[in-house]
Amino acid sequence: MSRIALAFDLGGTELRAALVGDGGNLLAFASTPTRAKDGPDVVIEQIAMLAERTCSDVPDAKPLGIGIGAPGPLDPVAGILTAPPTLSGWREVPLAGRLQDRLNLPVRLENDANAAALGEWRFGAGRGAASLVFVTVSTGIGGGVISDGRIVHGRRGLAGEIGHMTITSESERCLCGAVGCFEAVASGTALGRRATALTKPGDGSALRTLSHDGDVTGRHVVEAARSGDETALGLIDREARWLGIGFTNLLHLYSPDMIVMGGGISHGYDLLRKPIEATIQERAMPAYRDVPVVPAQLGRHAGLVGAASLIFLN
Amino acid sequence: MSRIALAFDLGGTELRAALVGDGGNLLAFASTPTRAKDGPDVVIEQIAMLAERTCSDVPDAKPLGIGIGAPGPLDPVAGILTAPPTLSGWREVPLAGRLQDRLNLPVRLENDANAAALGEWRFGAGRGAASLVFVTVSTGIGGGVISDGRIVHGRRGLAGEIGHMTITSESERCLCGAVGCFEAVASGTALGRRATALTKPGDGSALRTLSHDGDVTGRHVVEAARSGDETALGLIDREARWLGIGFTNLLHLYSPDMIVMGGGISHGYDLLRKPIEATIQERAMPAYRDVPVVPAQLGRHAGLVGAASLIFLN
Repeated sequence: MSRIALAFDLGGTELRAALVGDGGNLLAFASTPTRAKDGPDVVIEQIAMLAERTCSDVPDAKPLGIGIGAPGPLDPVAGILTAPPTLSGWREVPLAGRLQDRLNLPVRLENDANAAALGEWRFGAGRGAASLVFVTVSTGIGGGVISDGRIVHGRRGLAGEIGHMTITSESERCLCGAVGCFEAVASGTALGRRATALTKPGDGSALRTLSHDGDVTGRHVVEAARSGDETALGLIDREARWLGIGFTNLLHLYSPDMIVMGGGISHGYDLLRKPIEATIQERAMPAYRDVPVVPAQLGRHAGLVGAASLIFLN
Repeated sequence: MSRIALAFDLGGTELRAALVGDGGNLLAFASTPTRAKDGPDVVIEQIAMLAERTCSDVPDAKPLGIGIGAPGPLDPVAGILTAPPTLSGWREVPLAGRLQDRLNLPVRLENDANAAALGEWRFGAGRGAASLVFVTVSTGIGGGVISDGRIVHGRRGLAGEIGHMTITSESERCLCGAVGCFEAVASGTALGRRATALTKPGDGSALRTLSHDGDVTGRHVVEAARSGDETALGLIDREARWLGIGFTNLLHLYSPDMIVMGGGISHGYDLLRKPIEATIQERAMPAYRDVPVVPAQLGRHAGLVGAASLIFLN
């Protein structure tokens, strides 16, 4: 039987668990709403319960260990959740140690964006790369960086805060308070905001038809563009140009072998690809221009599979 | 006797050599104009000659190996200079292998910016840090990144091209062809250009007096600001704000324990420090705000000492 890891993706709203084979294949899956507000003790019991449930689906399974992706900031070496904004009230929780005691298996902790990057690197779009940058473009922009065969952690595991790199002097104010963040101009939220500003309820536009005359989202723009709507295609072009500027920075700063693009907006990858590439050709220094931007392959399971890989690598 | 390495800093105009002790101390130093145009064979003989000259200064010295900092792009693992723009006509030169044959010592090659970062990390301002970003601000902006105890190389050793990260949508066109590069707004060249545009030959300003009515340089601005000139102080403030924006990006992207600032403009560090820090406080996310920006300590020897450290580390 192949090696097996027990993997968790601890989100602020959903807790997901899987038994994962060492080929990155899911052998069993379970999820439950995270009772984050009830505190770490309750959530640790939820994790134990999901461990039992997934393991009972595969009776012979003997997991080698537990990998967990969790919201940062966290200390992956000490296995401590520092102060995750999406798990309010959690401060300095030694999650790895407590789970190790509870479930009697070695536990490895990684932040969720890095876990997803690991997943795509080991089992998805990034297989074989020595260095890659994984970028999720959805409500916000986040990411994880693999450089020379290792996750780039940096101080307190806080490296790779890609969404808050300043790339322009003009934008709506970002949620972080600064102006000009990559996320403020290129996230799905920013794309939706631009589409909403360009249209009006009741104007009969494709975008407002899709949104039922409510605010337009990034997903609506992708959908309208796919059906050939000119306004949406223009918005996609502008979106791709912002993505191209940000991706060019990532090329210059990390020199990855590839950029892997995930998140909700990556469903429009086929529409975004050409203008992203054109922007990179225009702005990147020659040595970086042939680095591919590819779509993520693992979707919502990237983090689970990446968390499992923490166990297989050790 | 302590361990000794032979170190070279191969620049387009100057070739410098030193015997370096394992405390980072220079035991002997020699330099010569690089005969870059005469090709690799001639330069390799120049290196051999400087090796002999420095070693003859310290008769007992038995260097363990040779570390070389050279202009990128280069392949540090294979020891090959790829196509350095400042060594015209050099293409795919296996410098490490050729020197190893010629001098019968193990040779390690690293790009010059990374070598300087290594020098500051091992023996200068960055001692004890697990992660740091070294930024040189002079004619251009360059740098090297240490993350989690290792140089970030990336594909073809091209990571850390800090000067060509886009941070604004407004600037003179950068030498690289793009608009908004960190280097285009925050290098010593950009500072001098702004000072030149603000003043006129013969206007009796402090800046034009220092420049003898020629173009004003970044160094002139630092000098005039130090003597209290209001125009220069305003220019320094604007320079520091651009540096602060770029440094904030570096904090978010690499999460270093510190940023080490070198290069000609770092002679104005005392004047720049406060507005740089204010910009970081304003723009960085809370978890990154207490990361210090410190001046480099090794000056022009950072690269030599860093090249030597390549030998001590192995």
